[in-house]
Amino acid sequence: MTVPSSAALTELLRDAGLAASPAEAASLLAGVAAAPPTVAGYAGVSLLGNVGAPLRRRLEALAAETAAQFSAEFERPGATGERLAALRAELRRRSLDGFIVPLNDEYHGEYVPMRGQRLAWLTGFTGSAGVALVLPDKAAIFTDGRYTLQVREQVDQRHFSCHHITDDPPYAWLAKTMLPGQRLGYDAWLHTTDGVMRFAQACEKAGGALVAVEGNPLDAVWHDQPPAPLSPVVPQELEYAGETSEAKRNRVAAGLRDAGVDAAVLTLPESLAWLLNIRGGDVPHTPLPLGFGLVSAEGRVELFIDRRKIGPAVAGYLGNGVGIRPPEEFGAALDALGRDRRHVQADPATAAAWVFDRLAKAGARIRHAEDPCLILKACKNAVELDGSRAAHKRDGAAVSRFLAWLAGAVGNGDIDEIAAAEKLSACRRENALFQDLSFTTISGAGPNGAVVHYRVTPKTNRRLEAGNFYLVDSGAQYLDGTTDITRTIAIGAVSEEMRDRFTRVLKGHIGLATCRFPAGTSGAQLDVLARRALWQVGLDYDHGTGHGVGSYLSVHEGPHRIAKAGSPVPLRPGMIVSNEPGYYKTGAYGIRIENLVAVIELPPLAGGEKKLLGFETLTRAPIDRNAIATALLTSDEIAWLDDYHATVYRDLAPLVDADTARWLEAATRPLGG
Amino acid sequence: MTVPSSAALTELLRDAGLAASPAEAASLLAGVAAAPPTVAGYAGVSLLGNVGAPLRRRLEALAAETAAQFSAEFERPGATGERLAALRAELRRRSLDGFIVPLNDEYHGEYVPMRGQRLAWLTGFTGSAGVALVLPDKAAIFTDGRYTLQVREQVDQRHFSCHHITDDPPYAWLAKTMLPGQRLGYDAWLHTTDGVMRFAQACEKAGGALVAVEGNPLDAVWHDQPPAPLSPVVPQELEYAGETSEAKRNRVAAGLRDAGVDAAVLTLPESLAWLLNIRGGDVPHTPLPLGFGLVSAEGRVELFIDRRKIGPAVAGYLGNGVGIRPPEEFGAALDALGRDRRHVQADPATAAAWVFDRLAKAGARIRHAEDPCLILKACKNAVELDGSRAAHKRDGAAVSRFLAWLAGAVGNGDIDEIAAAEKLSACRRENALFQDLSFTTISGAGPNGAVVHYRVTPKTNRRLEAGNFYLVDSGAQYLDGTTDITRTIAIGAVSEEMRDRFTRVLKGHIGLATCRFPAGTSGAQLDVLARRALWQVGLDYDHGTGHGVGSYLSVHEGPHRIAKAGSPVPLRPGMIVSNEPGYYKTGAYGIRIENLVAVIELPPLAGGEKKLLGFETLTRAPIDRNAIATALLTSDEIAWLDDYHATVYRDLAPLVDADTARWLEAATRPLGG
Repeated sequence: MTVPSSAALTELLRDAGLAASPAEAASLLAGVAAAPPTVAGYAGVSLLGNVGAPLRRRLEALAAETAAQFSAEFERPGATGERLAALRAELRRRSLDGFIVPLNDEYHGEYVPMRGQRLAWLTGFTGSAGVALVLPDKAAIFTDGRYTLQVREQVDQRHFSCHHITDDPPYAWLAKTMLPGQRLGYDAWLHTTDGVMRFAQACEKAGGALVAVEGNPLDAVWHDQPPAPLSPVVPQELEYAGETSEAKRNRVAAGLRDAGVDAAVLTLPESLAWLLNIRGGDVPHTPLPLGFGLVSAEGRVELFIDRRKIGPAVAGYLGNGVGIRPPEEFGAALDALGRDRRHVQADPATAAAWVFDRLAKAGARIRHAEDPCLILKACKNAVELDGSRAAHKRDGAAVSRFLAWLAGAVGNGDIDEIAAAEKLSACRRENALFQDLSFTTISGAGPNGAVVHYRVTPKTNRRLEAGNFYLVDSGAQYLDGTTDITRTIAIGAVSEEMRDRFTRVLKGHIGLATCRFPAGTSGAQLDVLARRALWQVGLDYDHGTGHGVGSYLSVHEGPHRIAKAGSPVPLRPGMIVSNEPGYYKTGAYGIRIENLVAVIELPPLAGGEKKLLGFETLTRAPIDRNAIATALLTSDEIAWLDDYHATVYRDLAPLVDADTARWLEAATRPLGG
Repeated sequence: MTVPSSAALTELLRDAGLAASPAEAASLLAGVAAAPPTVAGYAGVSLLGNVGAPLRRRLEALAAETAAQFSAEFERPGATGERLAALRAELRRRSLDGFIVPLNDEYHGEYVPMRGQRLAWLTGFTGSAGVALVLPDKAAIFTDGRYTLQVREQVDQRHFSCHHITDDPPYAWLAKTMLPGQRLGYDAWLHTTDGVMRFAQACEKAGGALVAVEGNPLDAVWHDQPPAPLSPVVPQELEYAGETSEAKRNRVAAGLRDAGVDAAVLTLPESLAWLLNIRGGDVPHTPLPLGFGLVSAEGRVELFIDRRKIGPAVAGYLGNGVGIRPPEEFGAALDALGRDRRHVQADPATAAAWVFDRLAKAGARIRHAEDPCLILKACKNAVELDGSRAAHKRDGAAVSRFLAWLAGAVGNGDIDEIAAAEKLSACRRENALFQDLSFTTISGAGPNGAVVHYRVTPKTNRRLEAGNFYLVDSGAQYLDGTTDITRTIAIGAVSEEMRDRFTRVLKGHIGLATCRFPAGTSGAQLDVLARRALWQVGLDYDHGTGHGVGSYLSVHEGPHRIAKAGSPVPLRPGMIVSNEPGYYKTGAYGIRIENLVAVIELPPLAGGEKKLLGFETLTRAPIDRNAIATALLTSDEIAWLDDYHATVYRDLAPLVDADTARWLEAATRPLGG
């Protein structure tokens, strides 16, 4: 590792009078650079010590420079051939014929830090789903329908053939390409047990064998591999978390004792963040501290994490019930559980196969069960719900400032998707408790709005033109809550068909927002309410209707969701979930109306026999009246919209400037008015 | 076997000049008596030969007398103690400590013929779900919430303790009652593999063992066990079946070849009936010929069935592609497949564990897969759908004659549940192609209507009184279709609450009847449409919304259904399913509105992008206008009901007498009118 330049760093540190050795400091700064910067810059530079603003700026510049060097390595043209050759040589050295390169890292989360982006380093492909297979004479990459074009642009097809992951799956490719007797390696850290089983069956079909490797052979030939990200771990204070970590640990421990389990392995960083009331910054847009954990049936937690991320104040905050241990000791800790023949629980849906292999080899009695934090984390407490309500008001004020600006600005015809997204981001940054965006804004005009997972680039950037829709899906991370909102704006006058479609999406949104249901009902049972008005005319949308949302955590969290083939997990009071039906006309326009809602217990009704649950809409922002075909709405639907708009005005008007307030008043007036 | 009296039979046969030996004839007549009579009597007497009406009557009387003797044995007071003692002695003789006595027989169907009613014989319990466990010093019976009272009335609690099957399950009882080293026997014919596994785990927990028996030890001590039922197998003619058996066998065979399977075991009599276009009468209310089958990947079927049920004409009708073999050869046929290392498919959800054990022991390669006839049978062809439409018109005319009669008769206050059910049955019997009721009529007045699986007895019989609801759920088997309809009738004026509830059930019924959905949608996704109006006021019903229905076959058939936790099987064109939301107020009244509907493909809509499916309502009968609170209905809902009633009147008026037609006209006039 030659970056950051140790000479420059040594000079900086000497000037500041800091004690760290140049080697330590260089290693630390590389880790800082390997973590994503937030809008406030590289938070991790504080790990070097308590530095003043001028030095901080210089350290951040050095981190940014280092990060740019990391990024450049991913984008180096023509590297695939030599990297593939090096990997194959390493495989031969280990008596292997091939290797699986998945997109996942060892945490199996939504975001992979630079260090874990093995697929991108080897192939150039930067999409969010894919896997590559390397054999002696052939190599292939598999991605889904969203990336059909992108994969062909990014990947050197002299070295990799490109395949559709469901139409032409890697298992089938292996079964027909692998030769009898060949040995395909895999890194058990990067696969779930189910995934391993499917590859093993494919290898068996071909007469070959699937072999777990010790140490990833790709890492062995990736000489400039970035280090693991280093961002400071910070407390999530009780005023936002609403429950002490000790109380949470006691609840988790009670569940483990009920199940007759001695300990549970926690491999999801968001579970550790929730359980320990801490946050971090190791991946983009989600305040996760990467690490692994073990929670015992007595409520003690062993946290396996790079100690450098934890300052002395945070170590004290974690208290005696939490042991901080280096990540390298995680395996030995599993071995110790196995030696004592402990009953150990781990989640096969999210934990690496490595965990199960290690536990089994050590002799542990393994229970396959869902991560015990998932359901507890999903049900927000009163403080978290109040925090979310407050965050949604501030967020709605920012969105309204943006929409008011947009209404005035689009007339010129020179606003484009990038400018709009940047303006929205700027509006949010002004908010109290703002930390980051909760995901990269989807800012799609006209046909770009029909691309469900669209991310604007300078190449795809379009102007917001009259007669079309502009779809903007965005959100923020505040200390007191995570937001996620989609609005679809009619630029000028839109066609009757477009208003019909918009109104049907709105009917679905209202159908879900107003439904009441008995305890025990899952999101899958309610999904049809959001689709029915589209189905009536032969239309539909090809994504789920709602995903769970964390409390200053992941913008996508389980175990609940609202979808056609949804999880059977019942919706419970305190769960936050999105309500986001849509409609997409390829090549023309996209529509999505998304609010976050909280599951609440409704007051008992006279004559009612069942405990009823319902949804409280959290999001505050006008829904574009100009896009609505009022005649399609029932009086109950109109009443809901008028009532929602009255609430939006009441809550946001005090938070915005006079111009925005005037726009807001018009945007929220009753449909009848 | 001492019945029927061979002397009487010998005399009868000699008088008729029939050739059967008295022993053969006695055995045959016992089998005939062990089958359920239809409204037309004991169809099986024709198996004795082509007898004239007078002899037929005498043979039927003899069969009825024999059947009465069989029944009397089930009801013999105080028999439990001696039967249990005999069973325990037999178990000791076989070095067993206990035995499982489930309700199922070897076909695992909805109805169990007398021969298989082991649980009833041993314990006296006659409900439709339960299992008994016998250990040396203790015995227990487990039933569900419907039978809490009945089981205590019927079962001698000096010998059996009574338990709730889910709150206090047999596995838990075993785990705590069985002693280490004890051996619990089970008959692998009477359990699925899953069921066996759960009992095995419970035995293992107790330190005991679960042991498959050769020959059922209960049968060994049941000296007067009725024989297997004997009813004639009859062709289901092409004019009703709509597809030749050969064509069906070719379709099934093609599926087996696609799956790389050499043969499939068919253990469901309804699958054999559908596949071979035959019907029988071995169980009540469902025209099933009991037997097992093997279908090969070339489309040949081996039918293992008592040859006496198949006359020469039917043997010819079945043709060369079907081999008729005695049931005793079924095991040997499985052995032969195993010897040849064949790939054999069987359905673990419905086939006895015995089948899998035998195949495995013989060396077959077993594929666990759904019975290949299920999905094909569920999707009715055009002829079957036309048959169902015709059957529903005749059935609706009968129901209307009944309802018109009821409207006139209830004024006196002396109509009771039994009289009403008998009148309805009499109305149906007049119909062309009528064969039988499709299940025992549920005829419940007032609080009896709130008992979902109510069956009237002289003890529970109630009058239909003014101010209350009368719920009648009934159906018939016609050669061209199976019907199932529920109507809830307001007797006199009913309360505002009752009309509110009735109207909410109706809104649910209409919500489902009018929905459109894209191909690929399952019944589970639609279920909420039937419940939503009840949920809005905190009410619900505790049963599924819809079950599949056969074509002159089972009134309950899978694999599709509409329910909260429904099967993920998509609804496909041609499937017939019930639409039956309800509401039940314990101790007060019950409401259910049930029509059968067929899944149909809707014509494409302008601007539509998805292939849309919807429901065609098959059932024809008025829905009680007097029970409706019109103000609760939307204009679309009123339009549906008025349109439905117009169709009912148009279709039924030509089929009914003048009085009924007049009543029908009033009963179907528009709600606004």
